[in-house]
Amino acid sequence: MIKALRALELHELQDFTQEVKSEVLLRVKEKIPHLESSLAVAELTVALHYVLNTPEDVLIWDVGHQGYIHKALTGRIKSLDHQRTRGGISGFLNRAESPFDFFGAGHASTSISALAGVCMADAIKKHKRHRIAVVGDGSFTGGQTFEALNHLGTIDTNALVILNDNNGSIDQTIGVLHNHQNYQAYFKSLGWEYHLCEDGNDVTALVAQLQQALTLGGKRVIHVKTTRPDLSPPKSYKPGTTFQWWAAEEMSLILAAHPELQILSPAMFAGSGFAPLREKYPQQLHDTGINEPHTVTTAAGIAAAGGKAWVHIYSTFLQRAIDQVIHDIALQELPVVFLVDRAGFVGSDGPTHHGVFDQGFLLDIPNVTVWNPMNGSELQAMLRRASEIQAELIGPLFIRYPKARTSCDSSVDFMEYRILKQAHSHTLLLSSGVLSTFAEVGAMDHIHVGQVKPLPTEVKRMLGRYQTIVVLEESIGVGGLSGTVAMEIAQTDLDLKLVIRKIDDVFTEHGSRQELLKETRLIPSEKGPSY
Amino acid sequence: MIKALRALELHELQDFTQEVKSEVLLRVKEKIPHLESSLAVAELTVALHYVLNTPEDVLIWDVGHQGYIHKALTGRIKSLDHQRTRGGISGFLNRAESPFDFFGAGHASTSISALAGVCMADAIKKHKRHRIAVVGDGSFTGGQTFEALNHLGTIDTNALVILNDNNGSIDQTIGVLHNHQNYQAYFKSLGWEYHLCEDGNDVTALVAQLQQALTLGGKRVIHVKTTRPDLSPPKSYKPGTTFQWWAAEEMSLILAAHPELQILSPAMFAGSGFAPLREKYPQQLHDTGINEPHTVTTAAGIAAAGGKAWVHIYSTFLQRAIDQVIHDIALQELPVVFLVDRAGFVGSDGPTHHGVFDQGFLLDIPNVTVWNPMNGSELQAMLRRASEIQAELIGPLFIRYPKARTSCDSSVDFMEYRILKQAHSHTLLLSSGVLSTFAEVGAMDHIHVGQVKPLPTEVKRMLGRYQTIVVLEESIGVGGLSGTVAMEIAQTDLDLKLVIRKIDDVFTEHGSRQELLKETRLIPSEKGPSY
Repeated sequence: MIKALRALELHELQDFTQEVKSEVLLRVKEKIPHLESSLAVAELTVALHYVLNTPEDVLIWDVGHQGYIHKALTGRIKSLDHQRTRGGISGFLNRAESPFDFFGAGHASTSISALAGVCMADAIKKHKRHRIAVVGDGSFTGGQTFEALNHLGTIDTNALVILNDNNGSIDQTIGVLHNHQNYQAYFKSLGWEYHLCEDGNDVTALVAQLQQALTLGGKRVIHVKTTRPDLSPPKSYKPGTTFQWWAAEEMSLILAAHPELQILSPAMFAGSGFAPLREKYPQQLHDTGINEPHTVTTAAGIAAAGGKAWVHIYSTFLQRAIDQVIHDIALQELPVVFLVDRAGFVGSDGPTHHGVFDQGFLLDIPNVTVWNPMNGSELQAMLRRASEIQAELIGPLFIRYPKARTSCDSSVDFMEYRILKQAHSHTLLLSSGVLSTFAEVGAMDHIHVGQVKPLPTEVKRMLGRYQTIVVLEESIGVGGLSGTVAMEIAQTDLDLKLVIRKIDDVFTEHGSRQELLKETRLIPSEKGPSY
Repeated sequence: MIKALRALELHELQDFTQEVKSEVLLRVKEKIPHLESSLAVAELTVALHYVLNTPEDVLIWDVGHQGYIHKALTGRIKSLDHQRTRGGISGFLNRAESPFDFFGAGHASTSISALAGVCMADAIKKHKRHRIAVVGDGSFTGGQTFEALNHLGTIDTNALVILNDNNGSIDQTIGVLHNHQNYQAYFKSLGWEYHLCEDGNDVTALVAQLQQALTLGGKRVIHVKTTRPDLSPPKSYKPGTTFQWWAAEEMSLILAAHPELQILSPAMFAGSGFAPLREKYPQQLHDTGINEPHTVTTAAGIAAAGGKAWVHIYSTFLQRAIDQVIHDIALQELPVVFLVDRAGFVGSDGPTHHGVFDQGFLLDIPNVTVWNPMNGSELQAMLRRASEIQAELIGPLFIRYPKARTSCDSSVDFMEYRILKQAHSHTLLLSSGVLSTFAEVGAMDHIHVGQVKPLPTEVKRMLGRYQTIVVLEESIGVGGLSGTVAMEIAQTDLDLKLVIRKIDDVFTEHGSRQELLKETRLIPSEKGPSY
């Protein structure tokens, strides 16, 4: 299709774009998240591949856009039938999928840094080619874009950044830069020439501007205003069915009872079912933009000033602020509560978004408390408990829950652990989180460890009663709950056999949670409801 | 002293400042790192405490400055005699040390985010007071400052940021913003009013400008130009004595042999003895500024473009880019080599700078290789091997070494592990890094594990020959090498006792490496040379 595109006359591009859009829409039977962003850059995508000699020329997409039109143009239009399903193509750019996907991007704001790297590699090889990064206005709230513009600005090279301004990311774009449309002054202050393209859905105008900018060379930005179909409404969860829904329900009560409590989120309220809370408690919910380090340190600042700070963040994005968790919160012993959504396999978003690393990282940090509820009832009990004890915390508390179905049968009390089965077996199964409800227990005794750090004293004591301990956790790496139990056994001179069932040391592709849990043998393959 | 300061007339401040400076210099017999930065803000510090009602008013220092004058003014002038030594005061701001240290800062660029948090906490409590953050021009290269300015700019509050521009951080400041002195346009584009104070060492002028800005209210920046004594020369290491020296020596050969190899560092060349390399290979060494996420993704970009990228970074700062390591490098299977300096206890910089987390994090990430040399000879062998096999890597390779003395007796070959003692004991000691040279071996067999990930197959096989395995590592957390061995034992049905000796789950204060290693029982307390 790319060859056909390049053979077209300029005046034929608009019709061509319409045809591609129609075919993509036709193929995508199920709703694709962020499809609006891709449709809004259909003309831009066509113009870029028309002007550039990709894949020899370098085209880097920042995550904000998603690349469905790009994928369609580069040999994957039929594959869109099976996008984001097990074995199908990824929802993101993916180097393994196509040479046209020069650089993957699952997390925002990285593309200009990658562009800087290409410029540096090309400089030392004296390799001449065009190099472009396309970044959305939402991604521009991430400080890495500033770091890259400021540094790349000092390098004598040709580099073009497209600011795709469709007035939003997954949610409204935050910040003065966007709100006041001060981009021109901003880019110039960092040494970049600025061009404005008012109609970014006019493919012929785009081609002209791209050609001009590439001819002029140097470091340039084209600020392209694109119009996208209406932003999808904030994600809503079917009442009474998911961890997300139960979290929002309980938080509503907690916010009402604690009018000084403030929840910050780096652009994740809309995706998590918290949008209605924002309407109801506008003074208490703050979307800080896509900027995890800033969000976490701001929460530390609130706590340092004696306020009640909570952070709402997805597990995979918490990785971006792990240093701030260590230095600004844990080391300073500040009481900040984190709601960690999307903990564990996330499903169709795949390896860039699975929440499989945070538990391992968090358990390595002193002064940290980590809770994994097994169901909606326990999640609500944990949220209530957190709101009650926050002032006593000497460090951060993380309440981690998956993007999964769950019920909330009745109100329960908070407990650090729950004995789910005790039948005098020689083997004890320790599990945590939602896996506790689906574990294959067989003849084993079974304890759900709600609090994985610190490991409850009673659980430590009970280890000695068994010959074998089986640890089951939805987490990657050599630490985590299994590492904690291994340390405990090593320190207490117990003669115990340890069996560890966790995620293998590989990146797991996309698929439904159930498929992934079966494939990684965390649940038996013949059972398990849709979660 | 703060009361005495506030009782002074305006015209007395200059003399007062001189006296404080003199006394600080007198007390600080040994060289304090970054002392120039503190001396350069002596007048600013005096002016701030004169104008503000600290600690009720909030004064937040970003790390760039260091707060020795601030500490002197706030009751700690005598404590400067014992700064940065075991039991003495910290070299950084520290909440536990004084109520005047409102927010700690060991890593750069966080202060405006903390300021935002204070504004938000004060807003909901209707608490009126002054709130100021002081940030150096070096810290401004970190994107978190952008995130904070852009977000805080949208909040209806009073907040004052002092840009302390002394024309450098630990090294020359990088980036167009500083080089072209485009601060005014930059701040305005983010919604901040801008004031310039040309002579930031004139204490009376500073008082007047501070008072004016605080009276005007809103979001304001005062760009204060301060003059500091000459920047300390780049750190030099006594030839032939440290890991740093041996690393630089070998890298010089490697850079000459691989003219396409590029080493990036987020402002750490000067501190690590790499400054002479930068002089010698200006096309190959690139200081990217204090911006770890950008640095790591740029390296990924170089690798994606087919270049040879190495990153030179301290362990503690690698934490700031762990997400970029996961997504941009490991997931994309890109061959990037990392020199991780300051791995393990760092000494007098203390808990914000100990390199104790990175090994635990790295070992949890798929596609990662981690090497810990035991001495200078092995470090050089590892660097040579890395330069030879880089193209074959399918993911990042980390070579971690401490800030410690070591020798390089002779050229050795790279080996994944070394059997240091084999005497048919029932107990095997596994150690890694420099600890392998100082471990108390006693009657145990002893293997130095140079490659901690992947754990060498032969080492795995040998485990079965023993009854007890002792793992010794200079790392915190429940994973790491000990977690790796625990997983191996759990997976192979071996009936083995595991003993783990690593850093306890607490933040360790500052002190010499030897003091800290003894205190944490990683080396016996009666032995061990100065390392």
